Parts: sequence; C-alpha cells; structure tokens
Amino acid sequence: MIELTKNDIEALEIGTAILGTGGGGNPYYGKLHAIAEMEKGSKVNLISLSELDDDALVISVGNIGAPAVSMEKICEGNEIVRAIRAIEEDMGKKVDAIIPVEIGGANGLRPIAIAAITGLPLVDGDGMGRAFPEMQMTTYSIYGHCSVPAAMSDAHGNTVIFKNLVDEFWLERLARACVVQMGGGAGMVEAPMKGSFVKKYAVPGTVTQATNLGLAVMRSHVEKTNPIEEICAHENGKVLFEGKIVDLERNMVAGFTRGKVKMEGSGGFAQSQACIDIQNENLILKVNEAVVCSVPDLIIILDIETGHAITTEILRFGQKVAVLAIPCHPLLRSEKALKIIGPAAFGYPEIQYVPFN
Amino acid sequence: MIELTKNDIEALEIGTAILGTGGGGNPYYGKLHAIAEMEKGSKVNLISLSELDDDALVISVGNIGAPAVSMEKICEGNEIVRAIRAIEEDMGKKVDAIIPVEIGGANGLRPIAIAAITGLPLVDGDGMGRAFPEMQMTTYSIYGHCSVPAAMSDAHGNTVIFKNLVDEFWLERLARACVVQMGGGAGMVEAPMKGSFVKKYAVPGTVTQATNLGLAVMRSHVEKTNPIEEICAHENGKVLFEGKIVDLERNMVAGFTRGKVKMEGSGGFAQSQACIDIQNENLILKVNEAVVCSVPDLIIILDIETGHAITTEILRFGQKVAVLAIPCHPLLRSEKALKIIGPAAFGYPEIQYVPFN
Repeated sequence: MIELTKNDIEALEIGTAILGTGGGGNPYYGKLHAIAEMEKGSKVNLISLSELDDDALVISVGNIGAPAVSMEKICEGNEIVRAIRAIEEDMGKKVDAIIPVEIGGANGLRPIAIAAITGLPLVDGDGMGRAFPEMQMTTYSIYGHCSVPAAMSDAHGNTVIFKNLVDEFWLERLARACVVQMGGGAGMVEAPMKGSFVKKYAVPGTVTQATNLGLAVMRSHVEKTNPIEEICAHENGKVLFEGKIVDLERNMVAGFTRGKVKMEGSGGFAQSQACIDIQNENLILKVNEAVVCSVPDLIIILDIETGHAITTEILRFGQKVAVLAIPCHPLLRSEKALKIIGPAAFGYPEIQYVPFN
Repeated sequence: MIELTKNDIEALEIGTAILGTGGGGNPYYGKLHAIAEMEKGSKVNLISLSELDDDALVISVGNIGAPAVSMEKICEGNEIVRAIRAIEEDMGKKVDAIIPVEIGGANGLRPIAIAAITGLPLVDGDGMGRAFPEMQMTTYSIYGHCSVPAAMSDAHGNTVIFKNLVDEFWLERLARACVVQMGGGAGMVEAPMKGSFVKKYAVPGTVTQATNLGLAVMRSHVEKTNPIEEICAHENGKVLFEGKIVDLERNMVAGFTRGKVKMEGSGGFAQSQACIDIQNENLILKVNEAVVCSVPDLIIILDIETGHAITTEILRFGQKVAVLAIPCHPLLRSEKALKIIGPAAFGYPEIQYVPFN
C-alpha cells in the first residue's frame, strides 16, 4: 500500500488525460476535488492487485455521461459516494475497496477523491487500461463478470439501482437513458467483484502507470527534453502523424460526443492528410485514407509543444498536434475482447483490427 | 372481501376502457391474462378500503408505456410480479396487498392477473379514478406520498429500482427514459404505502365501479336499451357531442401517444365541430372552438351504437361517436390536485378548469 501525494495527483491529471485517448472527460475537476479532500487531511491509499484479499468486495466506480457536458456541469462531489452506499444497502454488505472503471480521463482521477472521502483503498488498476465510451466495454464485463447490481446517482441525489439485467448491454442502454435525463452526468458504481476476479481481469497497475507517465511529462518540461519522445518511450508508443487540425465535426448524439477531426501534415508528414473518428474517444486513425491504428489500441492527440493531451471537447481548428499510437493491454486483444471493443463494435465492420506494434 | 368471477372480468374490460378516457391502454390482453390465471384455479380477492389494516403494506401496480405499443407488444406476464419481488427484496418486507395505479384502461385490468398469480388481495380503489399519462399524477403523489422505492421490470427480466428521488417528477422522467429503451412497455410498481394512507387518499371503490359500469353496458345489449344512456345514468355523465371523426393526428412522442381528433356533428349536434386534444388520454374537449370539458374530468369517446369506448390507438377516420363527460372524483378537484392534473399541467395554462356538472 502506498499513500498518494498531491504531486502524484498533479501527474495523474496529465497521465489520465493522455490515456483517455481524447475521451473519458477532462480530469481537471477530478484533480481539484481530490486535492481539496486531501487538504482536509484525508488520505488516499493505493493498493496493488496482489495486496487484495481474494474475498474482498471490490466495486468499479466512475462517472457516466458525455465529456462535453462535464466541462460545464461540475460534479456535486458525492454522486459516486451515494451510489456506493446504495449498492451496499442493496447487497447488505460493506465495500472493501474501489477500482476505477477506466484509467483514461476524468474517471481515472475521480476515484481518488472518492477514496479520500470514504477512506476505502483504491485498487491500482482499472477495467479498460484507457477510456471507452460504453459501460459493457470493461475487462470486468468482457471476462464474464456481471455489472449488476449497479447504482447511479446524480448531483441532486436521485438514485437508481439496476438489477437482474439480461446482458451487459442493457446496463449501458438503461443507464445512458437515465443519465440523459439527469442532465448528462452522474456517478456510476457497478460490478461488485471478488478480489480474486479483480486480480485476474483488471488491467493491472494503471494508476501507477498514469502517474509515472504524467511525471515523465512534467520532468521533460523541467529538463527541456521532448515530452512526446518521453511519452513514446514510457508507453512503447509511436508518432503516426504530425500536423494541423483543418476540419472538425463534433456533435452530441444520444448522450455521446461523436465526430471527426481532419488534419494536414507537417514536418515528416508534409503532403499527408489524416482523419480520426471519435465516439467520446478517438476510435480510428486514417493517414492518406488508410487505417493505421484502430480501437482498442490507443490513439492520442497531443499538443506538439507541451505533450499534453488534447481531449475531444477542447479540439479546435488550427491546433498543431502529434498523433500517437500506444499498444493496448493484452487483455483487450483477445478474441473475446475484440467482439466488444474491436472496430466492428463501434460500427466499423469493414476494419480488421491489426495490433499496433 | 369478495372473489371476482370471470363475468366480472368481462365487465371490467368494458368499464376500465370507458374510465380510461381514451388512454390507459387497451384492457383486452389484461382480461385474457386474468382469465387464463383464473382458469388455472387462482382466485382474485377484492377487498374494500375499510377492510385494509392500517399497517398493511400496500403497493401501487401497473404497466408503464405508450398505449399504442401495448397493442402489438404483449406483456410477458410476470413483469409486475418481478417488480413486486424487487421492491420486497429492497425493503426487506412482504407486500400485503396491491392496488391499481389507475382504474382506466389496461392498468385497471392487469392487477387482476397479478392478484391471481401472487395470491395478494386487490384493493378496491386506485390512484387516479380514471387514467393519466404520467406517474406523478396519482392521488398517492398528490397527497404527499413518496413513490419510491419503485421498481420496473420488462419482458426480458431487466429490472431497475428507483430510490431517493428528489421529487415525484423524477420518477416519471427516469422511468419514462427506461421504458423507451425497454421497447415501450414495462411493469411498474411504486409507492409502498401504509393501509392508513391508502384508506384516505386512494380513489375508493373504483374496481367495483368499473365492473358495475361494464355490467350496465352488457345488460343494455341484452335488454336492447341505449348503452350510452345507461353509462350516463351510472356515472352521472352527459353527452357533450355526437358526430363523425373527420381528422386524426396521432404521433409517438417521447414514449407518449399525442394527437388531436376532429369531429363533425350529427343529430342534435349537426353544424357543430368538435376537437379533442390527446396525450395518451383525452385532455381537452372543444365544441365550436369553446372548451366544454377538460382534465381532470373524464372525456370519453364512445362508439355511438355499442357504447364501447374507442381508445386512442383504435380511433380512425369516419367513426361515428358520442363524446361523454363524466365528473372526476373530488380528490382530483382540490387545489393541490389541479396543480398536478389540471389543464396547465398538460401545457394549457390558458384553460381554467371548470368542473363539469
């Protein structure tokens, strides 16, 4: 068990934004929330998968909603706490530890504040190793764990419990319909799991990974090294495009941010064009019309100077960017996983997933 | 306590359709369901409000969805039973009796089958004394009872529990969003009430009222008397228009059937025009542009020959109809009630409710 510091939280903001592949929401407010709780004297204890009791009750936590909404509609702060209490009441059991639903974006950071408020240990791992737009897209679901009972609670205190769903897609359908009514954002707690399951199927070590990634970027700023090279080295990634954003479509559709971003190349990529398809997250990268990287591998748009991630909601015309690919965790590359998070699952049956690197 | 007979159920189909004021869904499938359960030997015990223990746990039951959907998407049959079990599990208590959420339409009949399946007594009363399109429009809600915990379950078995809602409108919002995902129909159980509350605020005796109303229509067919006159005499109603349907608008909007029906007068109403505004139920009746009856009083379109109700989803061009008004129960006419179920609540702030008769 290690105790996270405020410097870790600063680094985590940078790292989770990068691993968010454009989506997962902006972690900035989650950082402020975590630091505010830590300044009250609350501690955040991070435990590794190996420290977890096989019989511990671990629950996946995060927010559900459109990233674009989360930029303006700030969390009340106790949404997830209320949802945890609702699940505990429903199950008649206390939760032993929480784990992020996804490490990418806001959901990689929000659990820090929740661990601080509740005093529950935070498990060093997550269900995606990145961010994905839908709820069935966790390794928990993919490897057979049922997401219900699940609970959601909004800023007003409205709380809904989902039970006995026919399959994992139903949680996504029903919770998404509710969050649209709730104004586009709510706390969501699901998949009460045993420690033994989490040890096997959570993407391991991702809180530490995101923290160290952020620290590497911070260090590059101090040491005046190239942050993008640092990120590539840290994550085994590669720059697949560099250029300027020349066109941008971004719409709110059924609670998601969907769109396309088009770029014209510069530097070594002059004369080339690239396009990224988005559903909250960056899904498909085409360079000169050819697919060069696709989900579940990570496609990340970085500010070419700072190496900071440019998330979907802050993309704008004229930005100078580098587009990075990072290989996803092997848990996301199995045949089982690709059915749920491969290109076809996002509406691209014509694209065959070819692992990047 | 009396045991309902199959003949009562036949009569109830006619009576609930009339009290449905065009909405509440067609009670036909509910009748078949009830009779099928009774033919297996199950009994349906109807108890009056006065027979109810003050401490009994009574729960409001019905289906939620658009009437138009219920014409084609037949209930699986155990939706409401699953929702009752989910509430019992959530509360850690057994339900003692069920009461219809509304007596009008399908929701006046479906609880019969549920009483037969579960063996629970059915309380002779309901929360509307008619049908209304939204969930906060019950006397239970109006007179201050909280509708949660509430549970809904669809034909597949997907089950959702609503808890800690900020106000009664939130149940309507969230449950409506879920039912749209569930294909437009689900079983809904809400407002676990004490017998003492139900005795005071349920619209009393409406199962018996609807049964006797149906029996009066059936008798008129045998005795060749005018069924519409029998209905008026039984319900203190009045024919406000007679004529032919000449125009019909009917759309599915956000899980509701909304529309307008226009009629040209005949008989004593020749040279007159009438128009009825619909949101699942008939809301406003205008004759020659003047409002002559509005919610919460009952506006009912009857087949001019048979006296059978023509529900919203089977209205069609050319039908010859009588339009009846029936006074609503005094519980629906209080200032408190009119805020929730008066014309303004349905988007007609310009219409002042004037009690019919």
